[in-house]
Amino acid sequence: MPLSSSPSVLLDSLAIVGVGMMGGSLALAARQRGIARQVIGLGRDQQRLDQAVALGILDAATTMPNALRGVTLIVVCTPVDRIADDVLRIAEHVGPETLITDIGSVKGNICEQLRVPLHDQFIGSHPVAGSELAGFEHSRPDLYVDRLCVVTPTDSTPARLATLVEQFWRELGMRVRELNPDEHDRILALTSHVPHVAAAALAALLTPTSAPFAATGFRDTTRVARGEANLWTAILEDNAGHVIEEIQRLTIQLDAFRNALQQHDTATLRQLLQAGCFGRQLFETNFANSSSEEA
Amino acid sequence: MPLSSSPSVLLDSLAIVGVGMMGGSLALAARQRGIARQVIGLGRDQQRLDQAVALGILDAATTMPNALRGVTLIVVCTPVDRIADDVLRIAEHVGPETLITDIGSVKGNICEQLRVPLHDQFIGSHPVAGSELAGFEHSRPDLYVDRLCVVTPTDSTPARLATLVEQFWRELGMRVRELNPDEHDRILALTSHVPHVAAAALAALLTPTSAPFAATGFRDTTRVARGEANLWTAILEDNAGHVIEEIQRLTIQLDAFRNALQQHDTATLRQLLQAGCFGRQLFETNFANSSSEEA
Repeated sequence: MPLSSSPSVLLDSLAIVGVGMMGGSLALAARQRGIARQVIGLGRDQQRLDQAVALGILDAATTMPNALRGVTLIVVCTPVDRIADDVLRIAEHVGPETLITDIGSVKGNICEQLRVPLHDQFIGSHPVAGSELAGFEHSRPDLYVDRLCVVTPTDSTPARLATLVEQFWRELGMRVRELNPDEHDRILALTSHVPHVAAAALAALLTPTSAPFAATGFRDTTRVARGEANLWTAILEDNAGHVIEEIQRLTIQLDAFRNALQQHDTATLRQLLQAGCFGRQLFETNFANSSSEEA
Repeated sequence: MPLSSSPSVLLDSLAIVGVGMMGGSLALAARQRGIARQVIGLGRDQQRLDQAVALGILDAATTMPNALRGVTLIVVCTPVDRIADDVLRIAEHVGPETLITDIGSVKGNICEQLRVPLHDQFIGSHPVAGSELAGFEHSRPDLYVDRLCVVTPTDSTPARLATLVEQFWRELGMRVRELNPDEHDRILALTSHVPHVAAAALAALLTPTSAPFAATGFRDTTRVARGEANLWTAILEDNAGHVIEEIQRLTIQLDAFRNALQQHDTATLRQLLQAGCFGRQLFETNFANSSSEEA
């Protein structure tokens, strides 16, 4: 097993492919927590990478995939529609002993594409963390702390691969749960992707006349709509099947509200609002039990 | 004009009808800021009212509307579907020199019902502030500070009435804007009532299986869904016309997302997300310019 020879350091070397806000935060946290002896960044722009090294985010940086040969663990942090290709390209340059994971928000397509060629080398991960900000300048070493990481082994993933990668996320302060890739995508469509769609749809209705009257309710309901459009285009397209299904379920709910109002059906309207209340309480109970962060 | 004889105190007496979280916060803030010589509460349960007096939220409390005779300003803080009746009932007990306003989240019906009988005594207000918590025990003297208050005069509202009530809200630390009641309801349907519907609709989709995977995006998007179902039933029904219209606009947006995904129309999907981004930026610019609170 390609672990560090010192029992206190999990990895001899860690490589981050795609050093943006997410990858930068991961590198910074891994360095600060001493999870790897060396943290290397792979990117496309050497000047930008040198800045990340100067900021103490990385130990070293390169634009050459073959410089990652022999690295213990590689985490691919590129946009979700590039991850599978990036993993395949990098796998050509590193030996079979190097393990690879990613941080993509959608797992079905990536894991399906990599299942046969890299079944004993790649496992999907989705650390459920993030911010609306982009660029490694916004890296935060605490971004992953107390958050959930979903790891998505397939039927052919060897146990030692899952064990190492899960240990890696735990050492970053994350809670880890396993789901199969399709289950992951179905659940995240509901908990993350469609809330994003709803926030964007609501925010798009705002006009210069109405904007001065929007207050804290609008602020929180639409916060995620600020997220980068290209990034979210890729996420939604990659999870299109499940997202379409959950948008339909959401519009059925909204139509029920509209019908209740049109028919002056107070009892149904109250039930719909109570169902929202219960769902929110279900969320709060789970969130409070699983996170030290203030809800 | 029934102002206080001392130039530094705006009102000789202020009465709060309905001492819950909103009314309690108003009373507390008025007392702490010395806006009135006396702050009286009117409610239905003398024991509960005595507790509010003991907590320093009120100077005095009563269950008898005729005890409010001669009060300078009355603010009715009861649920939106009871406000018009409460104002009419109280107006029978106090002299015509007593001015009356309210804090209802919907203004059209209330102002329409009171326009003829009380045109020189009543003016509608909507302080756009609140929290999901209920009961005067959750009163916060800073609830209204730096928030917007919409005051809704009709064509027949005398200027001196608007002036006094707007001054009252300003002394509580609020920014004041005037809208006619119907304009108010149209705009608030978009900025507050339909975001609540969307949050409730999303939250209702959560299941025990998916709840452990919901993170900060879901948390913020659904926060307001915790709001009291009866209160929101009344608000939505009172503003049914505009809310129905905005729900339709929202579902049209959501259908556009769904169609773009079904047709693999990346360009349209990106445009829809960008429209959300722009709307959110429009909100942030307005919110940052109008509030000292952190966005």
